[in-house]
Amino acid sequence: MAGGALEGIRVVDLTSVVVGPVATMFLADYGADVIKVEAPGGDLLRKLGGASKSGQLSPKFLHFNRNKRSIVLDLKQAESMAALRRLLETADVCVSNMRPKAMAKLGLSIEGLREINPAMIYCGLVGFGQGGRYRSKPAYDGIIQGAGGLTAIFEKSDGEPRFVPMTIADHTVGLIASQMITLALYKRQMTGASDAIEVPMFENMAAFVLSEHMGQLSFDPPRGEPGDLRVLDAGAKPVATKDGHICISANTDAQAFAMFRAIGQPDLCVDARFNSVKARYDNVSAYFALRESALLNKTTSEWIEIFDEADVPAGPSHTLESLFHDEHLNDVGLFQTRIHPTEGGIVDITLPNKSQALARTNYMLPPLQGEHTREILTELGYTAADIDSTFVSGSVAEPYAPVTKDTLKHA
Amino acid sequence: MAGGALEGIRVVDLTSVVVGPVATMFLADYGADVIKVEAPGGDLLRKLGGASKSGQLSPKFLHFNRNKRSIVLDLKQAESMAALRRLLETADVCVSNMRPKAMAKLGLSIEGLREINPAMIYCGLVGFGQGGRYRSKPAYDGIIQGAGGLTAIFEKSDGEPRFVPMTIADHTVGLIASQMITLALYKRQMTGASDAIEVPMFENMAAFVLSEHMGQLSFDPPRGEPGDLRVLDAGAKPVATKDGHICISANTDAQAFAMFRAIGQPDLCVDARFNSVKARYDNVSAYFALRESALLNKTTSEWIEIFDEADVPAGPSHTLESLFHDEHLNDVGLFQTRIHPTEGGIVDITLPNKSQALARTNYMLPPLQGEHTREILTELGYTAADIDSTFVSGSVAEPYAPVTKDTLKHA
Repeated sequence: MAGGALEGIRVVDLTSVVVGPVATMFLADYGADVIKVEAPGGDLLRKLGGASKSGQLSPKFLHFNRNKRSIVLDLKQAESMAALRRLLETADVCVSNMRPKAMAKLGLSIEGLREINPAMIYCGLVGFGQGGRYRSKPAYDGIIQGAGGLTAIFEKSDGEPRFVPMTIADHTVGLIASQMITLALYKRQMTGASDAIEVPMFENMAAFVLSEHMGQLSFDPPRGEPGDLRVLDAGAKPVATKDGHICISANTDAQAFAMFRAIGQPDLCVDARFNSVKARYDNVSAYFALRESALLNKTTSEWIEIFDEADVPAGPSHTLESLFHDEHLNDVGLFQTRIHPTEGGIVDITLPNKSQALARTNYMLPPLQGEHTREILTELGYTAADIDSTFVSGSVAEPYAPVTKDTLKHA
Repeated sequence: MAGGALEGIRVVDLTSVVVGPVATMFLADYGADVIKVEAPGGDLLRKLGGASKSGQLSPKFLHFNRNKRSIVLDLKQAESMAALRRLLETADVCVSNMRPKAMAKLGLSIEGLREINPAMIYCGLVGFGQGGRYRSKPAYDGIIQGAGGLTAIFEKSDGEPRFVPMTIADHTVGLIASQMITLALYKRQMTGASDAIEVPMFENMAAFVLSEHMGQLSFDPPRGEPGDLRVLDAGAKPVATKDGHICISANTDAQAFAMFRAIGQPDLCVDARFNSVKARYDNVSAYFALRESALLNKTTSEWIEIFDEADVPAGPSHTLESLFHDEHLNDVGLFQTRIHPTEGGIVDITLPNKSQALARTNYMLPPLQGEHTREILTELGYTAADIDSTFVSGSVAEPYAPVTKDTLKHA
């Protein structure tokens, strides 16, 4: 058994790429039996998420899909749809990021799913809520970042809209979806009732950004502009040192004065522009500017030691490389190397949160495409003869093979 | 009763500012009785999160603290500590973002909490995991962004580290914490066992960023550089139009060719630099550059109509103002004006996710400081005489009053 809080929960995962796999990763890491249903072509992210030795297990795919089992089903084939229905009959949760129209076409509308398994929780990840006019628009991370207000806060800060250079809408909404599913599992345990949940990316990101930056539009009538100007100030950025950048949060008088002394400018403690929280707020650009030239004569780690000593909150602005080699992360064992049969050594990111017994205990490598096709079909009651005659093996031996007779004929 | 999946769950909330209140907001929105314990000075965010009519309910405070009750307790006073212990005896969950040392000083170490209430789930939000060398470092959002790799991805993208201009580490880790708590509630329901959970901000953000951008460091030995270069490309940004900016995700040949035709450059469909996914990837800078001058002759909404028609995924790069007035958000009712006794009209952000019966049904306004002090103490069995003699009223009538006799003497 998997161990962990969600042991015994089966999740049928009809998602691909980022937002859905991130949502089901959490469920898998905490013990659910997540069955990743892949089309014969496989999850796009196997190839799109960066190069890999086999060409089939990109870095991103590895990180989002550990602890899951993979079955390949060609949902255009009747035999595969029948197997999916049998699988859904055994499921506690079904997650999809297909558009609702595509789901309905497969007979998997919310009503269709309820007919197959009325106790099953369904979570549909959509770009835009079905109650609004954008309901049919396609959703890509960049489009959600732009619509949801993330590009807006950069524009508000320094005049030019830009993206956060990661698929952050996907990651954030993935977290929210796994949270909603966990909540629905809790409720089902308490009351027996299942739920169908719509998780729209756009609305979630708009709420995420505006809860911080609705600002004076939060009052009716508005009392001024949107945005928390303190957070939006363009000068609030990592400060250059001799060998990199450092982040400083000197907010209180004690912290600011200690910083002034540490950078050899103790006279600033009595400077009327900087001698109180209000004064520094009113002269925030000058306050940020004075840091910019002051730290170039020492390295980041020299400054951090000085600031630690002086009780000035400070830390490195890591690069991706230095983050990977951070000593604290080594202390807590965030990275763990494991051996994968086709990729060799892979570096797994372990669970950041510590608890007694919530996490899964039997780690499973990210699956090859269709690695568990035969195993799962067997669990569903298909005989070996059924599987051989109707489905092509998706075992480790031939993990990338398409899986229906019909597909085989065309291969 | 509150209604919602977490009805009947009591959360004692010892957090303030952003990360903790965001975590407990989710629990409150879905039905938990979240009791926000405030010091006599009140949650800093009441004033720091932007101006408000009363000066006590900033926009950010409003958005993070609806559906919670507020009790003011001065934990430096023995009577208040005794009341907190009585409160904890009735709790299902306790959440704190105090440093572990400060908690221990109050007798609220994990062992201390377990003695008070062994069935209670405890979630401690910390900057850095207690198993690593940064365990005692202070945590501010900017420091976590810098240490956790968010500034790194901007540096990797265009050479200069910067912050996401919102307290995004706080928001993200707040989501993760509420997820861990929900999971622990589920497990407790299944097995009866409670958990103490450590949620470290740094490790969580490092995992969040690196799951996307560990890139070729995901293999051991590394096969190249970290980072998904496709996502990090500096040219991947919103494109200027006549009146703003637009976001375009034209990835497939069909989408790219439709875009070329829409912008009046059909010849690009057969241009060897742009006529396949691989060609566009190899010439990504030129591909992004050609869009930059091509869209200035029409407005964003004109372009969106054209691109919608042509099946080119596109959407607005909203400003905070245009996002607030977005018609789809109006269709789904994301914003709802409510009347607050001291602030007048306030604009609440409703729940983005739709489900049958997970959400709380009785919305409660964000509380005045100490608004429920008397009510909660009464529930704990204190008599009116007890409350009057030991505690000062924190009722609506005098919501900002300090609440212990001793504090009153000094007021």
